[in-house]
Amino acid sequence: MYDPTLTIHATGAATKTVEEHKEPQDVTLHAAWYCPFTHRGWITLEEKGVPYEYREINIYHRDENYERFLKINPKGMVPALERNGKALGESLILCEYLEDAYPTEETRLLPADAFERAFARLWLDYISKQIVPAYFRLIQAQGEQNQTTAREEYYKILRTFADMVKGPYFLGEQFSLVDVAIAPFVVRDAVLKEKRGYERVDVSAKWKEYADKVAARPSVVKTSSEIKDYTHFYGPYLRDEADSEIAKSVRAGGGIP
Amino acid sequence: MYDPTLTIHATGAATKTVEEHKEPQDVTLHAAWYCPFTHRGWITLEEKGVPYEYREINIYHRDENYERFLKINPKGMVPALERNGKALGESLILCEYLEDAYPTEETRLLPADAFERAFARLWLDYISKQIVPAYFRLIQAQGEQNQTTAREEYYKILRTFADMVKGPYFLGEQFSLVDVAIAPFVVRDAVLKEKRGYERVDVSAKWKEYADKVAARPSVVKTSSEIKDYTHFYGPYLRDEADSEIAKSVRAGGGIP
Repeated sequence: MYDPTLTIHATGAATKTVEEHKEPQDVTLHAAWYCPFTHRGWITLEEKGVPYEYREINIYHRDENYERFLKINPKGMVPALERNGKALGESLILCEYLEDAYPTEETRLLPADAFERAFARLWLDYISKQIVPAYFRLIQAQGEQNQTTAREEYYKILRTFADMVKGPYFLGEQFSLVDVAIAPFVVRDAVLKEKRGYERVDVSAKWKEYADKVAARPSVVKTSSEIKDYTHFYGPYLRDEADSEIAKSVRAGGGIP
Repeated sequence: MYDPTLTIHATGAATKTVEEHKEPQDVTLHAAWYCPFTHRGWITLEEKGVPYEYREINIYHRDENYERFLKINPKGMVPALERNGKALGESLILCEYLEDAYPTEETRLLPADAFERAFARLWLDYISKQIVPAYFRLIQAQGEQNQTTAREEYYKILRTFADMVKGPYFLGEQFSLVDVAIAPFVVRDAVLKEKRGYERVDVSAKWKEYADKVAARPSVVKTSSEIKDYTHFYGPYLRDEADSEIAKSVRAGGGIP
């Protein structure tokens, strides 16, 4: 479903970041400015300080640029990370690839200790299986009663997560992949605030403190567009008319495809 | 749903392996002999040669042993790996923990190269999101027509995977976490053969060659019980009456919870 009124480029603070990453580099992020999964890869590139080219792919408008992209990534999904002519999809796998390929102590996104890494992976799994589907259920909920139910459910799921936050970030002082994975949904809770009566403080004081901290992280700020543009993008979701794979899966009662 | 006729201990080749791992060790595998997710952790322990205690947990029969287990792992799910009084669940996270905690070149279950690791992770994701739900859809399918449809769908999903096998194992000469993740479902295809008209060779010649190789791997053989006992365990699934989380999720059209 191609919406011709949808802006086709990042806006707000992200505009400048895109501008600064137009030159070809060893690493290319094939991206969609509005996509929360793209956002994870983008934040990771900024955190790790990897030189990259940002290339906007309009998956709703299959032009020449898109055709070229398909040759690298036949699935045609964003995000995709290209390096040495090979492409990788799936946002968390792509982020973990960057962590493996650019290991530096200062920008470590997963703990060195094996048990701590496993703990981080368990909560990444929680974000994928619990938080993200609940975000979409709320944004797609129609009618006041369904919205109230979906909002309470989302609050409960976020509260469980917030209770585990060591502070200031999920694992403590170090910003980690767990924070990267949830950040795009923290940024996009502004849509829920405007359209679904969501308030960070209504989840819990601990959640608000954590969410505020994540939202203020420079890598997150620099890669975020204006809220009004996210809200515009989520129009079909807010009316439960979106036909993306995730929208369809959530509508059918499932999780992330 | 507690089935009193269900054997409560591993059988066949696995009997001896359980017997050899009764003594307390730093690492304990809280296990259920029939559980394919437990099986992944068990194969990994054998592959890596980590000293471990095997402890059978009967999640359908909440006795003293089970109550003790709950203290370590409040979720009460198997598999759980206990080490230094801390427990880890989620089979693939648990396997990757063992890979991280016991790094040895000879028993490396994930490639050293970052891109190759990411490639392995993409196919682990495929196993979780495509293969495992399709296995359960087939085993739970009722009526000849539904079974034929589910079988053809399972074949198609396995063919896509088989096409990527480098041989003899998924990533080549080295047995990897991708093989570990699929092995329990290769072993349990005997249930599909007996009850759902499945044949390895009907997927593809390449699949048969790969599946035969994985099934013959010593770590897989040593941790497998007798087929008749797996078939007995899957009785409620074969009648679509199982009330496990995965059975309910698959019945509702979803994936692994």
